[in-house]
Amino acid sequence: MEKIGQYEYITEAYSLDFCGRLKFPTLFSYLLNAATKHATERGYGYLDMMKHQTTWVLSHLSLELFQQERLSEPIAISTWVERVERIFTYRCFEITALNGDVLGQARSVWAAIDVNSRRPSSLANIGLEDFIVDKPCKVKPFSKLKHAEIELNNNPINYTIKYSDLDINKHLNSMKYIEAMLDLFDLEMFENYNIIGFEIAYFAEAKHGMDLQLFKQKISNNEYITSIFNNNVMISRAKITFEKIF
Amino acid sequence: MEKIGQYEYITEAYSLDFCGRLKFPTLFSYLLNAATKHATERGYGYLDMMKHQTTWVLSHLSLELFQQERLSEPIAISTWVERVERIFTYRCFEITALNGDVLGQARSVWAAIDVNSRRPSSLANIGLEDFIVDKPCKVKPFSKLKHAEIELNNNPINYTIKYSDLDINKHLNSMKYIEAMLDLFDLEMFENYNIIGFEIAYFAEAKHGMDLQLFKQKISNNEYITSIFNNNVMISRAKITFEKIF
Repeated sequence: MEKIGQYEYITEAYSLDFCGRLKFPTLFSYLLNAATKHATERGYGYLDMMKHQTTWVLSHLSLELFQQERLSEPIAISTWVERVERIFTYRCFEITALNGDVLGQARSVWAAIDVNSRRPSSLANIGLEDFIVDKPCKVKPFSKLKHAEIELNNNPINYTIKYSDLDINKHLNSMKYIEAMLDLFDLEMFENYNIIGFEIAYFAEAKHGMDLQLFKQKISNNEYITSIFNNNVMISRAKITFEKIF
Repeated sequence: MEKIGQYEYITEAYSLDFCGRLKFPTLFSYLLNAATKHATERGYGYLDMMKHQTTWVLSHLSLELFQQERLSEPIAISTWVERVERIFTYRCFEITALNGDVLGQARSVWAAIDVNSRRPSSLANIGLEDFIVDKPCKVKPFSKLKHAEIELNNNPINYTIKYSDLDINKHLNSMKYIEAMLDLFDLEMFENYNIIGFEIAYFAEAKHGMDLQLFKQKISNNEYITSIFNNNVMISRAKITFEKIF
């Protein structure tokens, strides 16, 4: 079995956003899909993990896009294991056009948690190391997203988790976090800017019926921090980088 | 070119609902994807229609499921043109397991509207008739969903259309209607029942920023009507049929 997996994604016109772009949550779902296929084909997919009463949870993901406008074409996503630690494993992605042009890259960090205790489980003996590839992954290291102070300065938008938001673990699914964060921006933002960077950290699990508070803060000209709280518990935080469309 | 198109869909475990079932809005997106691929391959996809300043809009869809629990396996969706009228065209679907077992069937009704006037455009001269197939489509005829009276009896749930809800036409995308309707039910409903029938009619376009009111009414033991209004304008209505899980 090849260590690097590559998968193609074709987006039909009706799934594009109102500017004809690939929707950002859809691109995110393609990355998760590629990660899942890669893991499943190599014997450590969700069903394999379930045999040991564990499940994968995404801890961080950082994505950089170079040619946003070409993501609506058919694309290929390559993914590979970069590193394995005791609790975390690092998975990289490269997004290319079918002619090989690199359109974007990403790094993700995953933990395997025990389905009952919800505590991290050791990754020492599941054979992940066999798939490590020494292919460079140039995504910038994760920012310290924990240290923004946006909660102090803003009135939150409230959000209640509903049936359609749930994943197989009965928690808010990772795509819905992103939709909720993007919905904090006005439509004019999406008309005038492309997203070229997105970094998200998941801190705690968001469950059905939970009332969430969403915050947004501008930290530099084209950069925003968004965060999701459940009262005093930080659930997730993201840094979104925009680029003006000329 | 074959008149009937068939496409395969594989659902990764992480996309299933919390009972391990294929999410209903995901199945719906597979049907739309199959319809789009079938039309595009035969020269009347969204981009072809756009050359004539028209776009496809879904008017009705009626879906019947026989083996809900097997939809999480890899499935194939066949689709074909059943009938073409001046304004509407009828498209049928058959959902099968990879061994050929029929798991469900659906009929949809589409109109091509002028992108500027938003009025229906004639389907007379676009060559759709060449693809009509005389394959039986056993889905029951559409109910008269217009005649329920639920608005009188209920307090609505409010919903505001956001960026993530929009399709390429800047309207609420068809999947999001369904998510919003399903979210009217308690989680216990999905724990104890499967959806075996779903019929939806789209009456008016729902735009960004619009405030919607959602209603639900039980009409028989396992049947519900849900509807979406914008003040006094009916946007969409559905009939959902559940079956108790034993």
